Amino acid sequence: MTVYLVGAGPGDPGLLTVRGAELLKAADVVVHDRLLDMSMLKLKGNNARLIDVGKKPGDAHSQERINDLLVEVGSTFPVVVRLKGGDPFVFGRGGEEALALQKAGIDWAVVPGVTSAVAVPAYAGIPVTHRAVANGVTVVTGHRQKGVEDVDWRVLAQTGTTLVILMGVSRRAEIASELMAGGLPSSTPVAAIRWGTHEAQVICTTTLQGLGDVQLQPPCTIVVGEVVNVGLAQQRITAELSATA
Amino acid sequence: MTVYLVGAGPGDPGLLTVRGAELLKAADVVVHDRLLDMSMLKLKGNNARLIDVGKKPGDAHSQERINDLLVEVGSTFPVVVRLKGGDPFVFGRGGEEALALQKAGIDWAVVPGVTSAVAVPAYAGIPVTHRAVANGVTVVTGHRQKGVEDVDWRVLAQTGTTLVILMGVSRRAEIASELMAGGLPSSTPVAAIRWGTHEAQVICTTTLQGLGDVQLQPPCTIVVGEVVNVGLAQQRITAELSATA
Repeated sequence: MTVYLVGAGPGDPGLLTVRGAELLKAADVVVHDRLLDMSMLKLKGNNARLIDVGKKPGDAHSQERINDLLVEVGSTFPVVVRLKGGDPFVFGRGGEEALALQKAGIDWAVVPGVTSAVAVPAYAGIPVTHRAVANGVTVVTGHRQKGVEDVDWRVLAQTGTTLVILMGVSRRAEIASELMAGGLPSSTPVAAIRWGTHEAQVICTTTLQGLGDVQLQPPCTIVVGEVVNVGLAQQRITAELSATA
Repeated sequence: MTVYLVGAGPGDPGLLTVRGAELLKAADVVVHDRLLDMSMLKLKGNNARLIDVGKKPGDAHSQERINDLLVEVGSTFPVVVRLKGGDPFVFGRGGEEALALQKAGIDWAVVPGVTSAVAVPAYAGIPVTHRAVANGVTVVTGHRQKGVEDVDWRVLAQTGTTLVILMGVSRRAEIASELMAGGLPSSTPVAAIRWGTHEAQVICTTTLQGLGDVQLQPPCTIVVGEVVNVGLAQQRITAELSATA
């Protein structure tokens, strides 16, 4: 009996991994998040049970309940797939789920996924690294967590790396202001991408100075850095290309 | 006619994406790198032409030659797959290849892949982010490039993010020394992973103080930060699980 922590990728069903697709087909139970493209779940076998554990904002205890649920189904069913948006270990809390399973003596394995932090900018025509433009990339969350120190935006402003900010759109004005206070020019190019890689994708490009005025609701990915202006074409959303879509 | 820049993932063939696998099957030409798990190429159709453009160290003009080759095959064959290790836009120089194609008027599209920067640590039991342990992750290359400014290691030491250093093993002593000069304690946990996600994977865990003494040859991924000690089990390498392996 094994619980597989499977990264579903950023949304486009074609970006699920081959092993992730095989495990979905073989699963007895699929425990899934809320933001996923639901068409991916068609890959599961006919008898597989689906459990939606999509967290609602303000539901503080839900991660613990998810951990308990995984232990419960993991000790009952042979193949459990825990399907998580993006990659399980990039702000996916997969590490906590794996630790809970490990502590309960249940076998688990991770199947890494395509992270939204890289794929969402890519579909918007932004390579997160680019020779002579950005020698690295830093991925952080803009979401403040209880009891966890906030990101030091002023230090991040000095790294020379592209910044990819997940879950930061509601704090965009404060983040822009801190990054400028840390030394990034107000003219630094910025892209804010809502529903990246989905059909409903919206891409706004601006500067740090303009970020506060961008009107977008979550889920958003914000990219800060000169790579925004490299000049690659935005990608057509081509979910229909994929036989599995 | 389209050239697809496809991320092959970190090595394990099960970590190729569903769309990547479909495109390999449909390709007329596959232009591939050197470090890939060669078993992945079995997915291609019987009549597809394979072109190995694996770069050798010191071969300074080769990226330009690869760009020219892509333009050439891209203007001749209907479906060209440019298969790149990891993700095309994370130190993959995919942005340069895309720009060259765009400039030549050739259609291109990116198919993001599972990046080694996340998956290699994951297989070693290391989540690159973990609640209350690391609120972000920075990915840089340790490889110094001609005419490109070096990473500012002392600033990176102050970000509070996990550091993932690709292609840095030959400069490991210098990097450790700079990170300590920047303020990271000499006791900071470090993992150096050779051939991550491959059967021949080797994982060495140490501290910043010990990193200089680690004897590993490239290709290596170095992870610096408290997430190294989160305590997740290392993953068994299970390429045989995948029907495509």
